[in-house]
Amino acid sequence: METSRRELAAMIALGSTGIALSSTSSPAQTGTTLASPALVHHVFFWLKRPGSQKDREQLIAGLRTLRNIPVIRRLEIGVPAGTESRDVVDASYDVSELMFFDNVQDQKTYQEHPVHQQFVKSCEHLWAKVVVYDMATV
Amino acid sequence: METSRRELAAMIALGSTGIALSSTSSPAQTGTTLASPALVHHVFFWLKRPGSQKDREQLIAGLRTLRNIPVIRRLEIGVPAGTESRDVVDASYDVSELMFFDNVQDQKTYQEHPVHQQFVKSCEHLWAKVVVYDMATV
Repeated sequence: METSRRELAAMIALGSTGIALSSTSSPAQTGTTLASPALVHHVFFWLKRPGSQKDREQLIAGLRTLRNIPVIRRLEIGVPAGTESRDVVDASYDVSELMFFDNVQDQKTYQEHPVHQQFVKSCEHLWAKVVVYDMATV
Repeated sequence: METSRRELAAMIALGSTGIALSSTSSPAQTGTTLASPALVHHVFFWLKRPGSQKDREQLIAGLRTLRNIPVIRRLEIGVPAGTESRDVVDASYDVSELMFFDNVQDQKTYQEHPVHQQFVKSCEHLWAKVVVYDMATV
């Protein structure tokens, strides 16, 4: 693999003694940060019947209705990927939703939105466990 | 809050008897899907010294170097957001990285990339626990 000048610079910056705490933004970083919403909401669902393709499809269909909630800047729905199996990788969930919001208030608006509440009402019988991570970008 | 025509359509589609399994894509969904990379890689770090702002900053600085790896389509770095405290929300982690790749092969290339390996070497003494979720978008 060819190593670009920018990659080399990053490797030099890391060096052998640790990482500079005051590293300035690279152009790529600045570009990403400018376009970034401030809040990432990632939810993982474990089904009551993990082997049921029907239940998985129903949950995914329910999650798709959430796209109609205006405060959601981006919505991705997924299932465990076929990446290498490692101790640190949790691939035990069945379905996942990933959302971007502009801020905490918008995430609250989403929680209370009738389309979200209808989704919970229609689908909550399908899942045994839910884990949510809310992350503020830095 | 005003309810738009699209939101109303979604609420009607959900109905009271469940969710249609064969729902077609909304324009918003199609747009998002076309722009979507196929693989989301979300990593959560718990520090050995959770109270250490220095360790947190060092880990974040290390994660920022990963932006120089070309196969990464998008990188977000974050910390627990100030969303409502609920049983399902895990806000115990210290730092998180969220990456988008085009496919599983690109994620493998990233794992083996010298900038990533240098990051692990420089920062792994900081964390006590790592949990990774790899999600293929549907």
